[in-house]
Amino acid sequence: MSTQPSETTATLDNPARRLLLKGSAGVLAAYGLMHLVPTSRADTLETLPDYVSWKRQQDLILHGSETIETRRDAIRSGVITPSRTLFVRNNLPAPDPAITEDPDAWEISIEGVGNPRTLSLGELKRMQVTSVASVLQCSGNGRAFFPHGASGTQWSVGAAGCVVWTGVPLKAVIDELGGSADGARYITATGGETIPEGLEPKDIMVERSIPTEALESALLAWEMNDEPLDRAHGGPLRLVVPGYYGVNNVKYVRQLAMTEEQTDAKIQVSGYRVRDVGVSGSSDQPSMWEMNVKSWVTLPLDTTHEGRNLIYGVAFGGTKAIDKVEVSVDGGESWQEAEIIGPDLGPYAWRPFVLATELSSGEHRIVSRATDMDGNSQPRERTDNERGYGHNGWEDHGVSVNVG
Amino acid sequence: MSTQPSETTATLDNPARRLLLKGSAGVLAAYGLMHLVPTSRADTLETLPDYVSWKRQQDLILHGSETIETRRDAIRSGVITPSRTLFVRNNLPAPDPAITEDPDAWEISIEGVGNPRTLSLGELKRMQVTSVASVLQCSGNGRAFFPHGASGTQWSVGAAGCVVWTGVPLKAVIDELGGSADGARYITATGGETIPEGLEPKDIMVERSIPTEALESALLAWEMNDEPLDRAHGGPLRLVVPGYYGVNNVKYVRQLAMTEEQTDAKIQVSGYRVRDVGVSGSSDQPSMWEMNVKSWVTLPLDTTHEGRNLIYGVAFGGTKAIDKVEVSVDGGESWQEAEIIGPDLGPYAWRPFVLATELSSGEHRIVSRATDMDGNSQPRERTDNERGYGHNGWEDHGVSVNVG
Repeated sequence: MSTQPSETTATLDNPARRLLLKGSAGVLAAYGLMHLVPTSRADTLETLPDYVSWKRQQDLILHGSETIETRRDAIRSGVITPSRTLFVRNNLPAPDPAITEDPDAWEISIEGVGNPRTLSLGELKRMQVTSVASVLQCSGNGRAFFPHGASGTQWSVGAAGCVVWTGVPLKAVIDELGGSADGARYITATGGETIPEGLEPKDIMVERSIPTEALESALLAWEMNDEPLDRAHGGPLRLVVPGYYGVNNVKYVRQLAMTEEQTDAKIQVSGYRVRDVGVSGSSDQPSMWEMNVKSWVTLPLDTTHEGRNLIYGVAFGGTKAIDKVEVSVDGGESWQEAEIIGPDLGPYAWRPFVLATELSSGEHRIVSRATDMDGNSQPRERTDNERGYGHNGWEDHGVSVNVG
Repeated sequence: MSTQPSETTATLDNPARRLLLKGSAGVLAAYGLMHLVPTSRADTLETLPDYVSWKRQQDLILHGSETIETRRDAIRSGVITPSRTLFVRNNLPAPDPAITEDPDAWEISIEGVGNPRTLSLGELKRMQVTSVASVLQCSGNGRAFFPHGASGTQWSVGAAGCVVWTGVPLKAVIDELGGSADGARYITATGGETIPEGLEPKDIMVERSIPTEALESALLAWEMNDEPLDRAHGGPLRLVVPGYYGVNNVKYVRQLAMTEEQTDAKIQVSGYRVRDVGVSGSSDQPSMWEMNVKSWVTLPLDTTHEGRNLIYGVAFGGTKAIDKVEVSVDGGESWQEAEIIGPDLGPYAWRPFVLATELSSGEHRIVSRATDMDGNSQPRERTDNERGYGHNGWEDHGVSVNVG
């Protein structure tokens, strides 16, 4: 993770909240950006917004128009998360539907390479194609479990899913254009969201930098789950960085540059930085790049029958494959190794697991603990941090189930 | 394949056609069974029937209300066929929607085991669970390429898809009930379709027998693509036999028996039997069980640009994994090995392949030829047979593409 010095110092973490404090609530409201204010509950919804009306509402929890969570029990032992069930989290409102009407005409400029140029999606499709299954997870997945009340959407476990991406390997694009410029240490991608007037672009734009080592696995994707990529998920073109937190998978990507430094956009400089509670974000703090090892039980949740039960869940290791998953039905006193089931879709995919066990009547605290191929196991405790990022503590992720 | 002697002799291949000749067209029409008459075009449709209105029509070709094909170019390099894009083929009209309203209450009787009994789907779900990716393909996929005009739906390549099934391994169920009865050589499964009055049940019921060796891989599935199994695809419960033709994957399965003999239902005795053109079906002919090795190009189809092109397709080997795929852009004169891409979902799944190649202007005949891990390759020629089953000849499956 990055420890390079801060280039910009922000006094308040969230640009929208800062604008609100400056008296710019009208601007935010006019552009439908009230949801960017972390404490806002203004847009609590009862039905799916139009742009995701094709999703299956019974599988989803509507936090806001741009923050929609997958219900824990909708995953079961799911290998691939159906598109209709997948969570949604947009940093800015989804673009106009026109954005995906002629996908092949979408353009992306590639900079910081031997021969910089603009490529259409149609041209990218002629270069190469591959498919990768990977977990897409919001940095704040598990935020609801932090007792300090971390600001932002109160995700439980459902700001995550495992999907198949199809597109061109980023490395093939860079190689085709003469390779990375000398000294490049980051891949910097810029989203195609519309920046509302009245807001400082650098405060609000989605532009993220990730280490160049991600070139080995990243792709520019135009399909998700073997369907043209919907605008709700970044269509027509999205940077996909397998094993990295969601924010790095830049949607509607319109520029990709190999850069010496990280971008000075606020979302990179002070956003998505892990720091102690009460501390402001800055670029000397770890950035939310690779995901850590994590798992959770998906079934049973509240109640179940006495006797034989199958305990279901999913486990993943970010950029590392899963080695094993253990399950405890007594809150972590004793553990049994679960069976990992279904096809292995590669190191970036999650693995469903199942444990068959007998449950006696009464209350059981069911928890799971995954270990990746490098031997990293989920810790028992969370690491408290201001924004509630990267929670993989097994204790908080357990479920209390009434048996009988 | 079976060569056991015929137990029943049918003079006409199709029970519906026979009824029609007997003057029972009124019965068929009243029950919406006119599509069972192979030559009928009575139910040519312009929009999706209600029971599959959730599918994506632009990906589909509507042959009839129970025969809906996936368009060749809707597959591209698809790893998993989206449920909305998957073909439909029902031997009888889809049951009432009520059939999937309380899936866990669905019952299946298990016979021919140590302790025969009826199990609810809810009970099955507590036994074990696994997921398997497999190709689902109609026996008549490719029928349109037979020059003798084989009766039945004129499928091109789209009566096939690759999906993920989730359910209980059949072997676990059989073991739990005391194991197979002595002398069992077949797994015989009975579908839950409603048999219209006025028709002889044995003539019309979907009851299929497959060799017991399929016990190692078969499952009783309640999910497809990680969603509850829809009635269009056999929900609430379907027998899935990975690597076997679609008809053996009995829908709405209500009975499963380990038997010494194959069922005497017509669909087994004389249906789905491979025989010379003009010959009636009988049980001494090979039954449509394991699928053979097959592939086809999905893109480009009619036209493409000069210069660099990516040629896409899919390949599978039935019960055997794919070893390699070769592609020719000159009708089979010369071949290049294609790249197999995307995650490997196991031996029963198909593998997307891609060949990057330069195409000169003019007409190109693009063909593909797959080889499985046992060294079986697709033949050049089709094997002509009365009902147009099991076509895997590479020549007929090619596409003529105009370049320039």
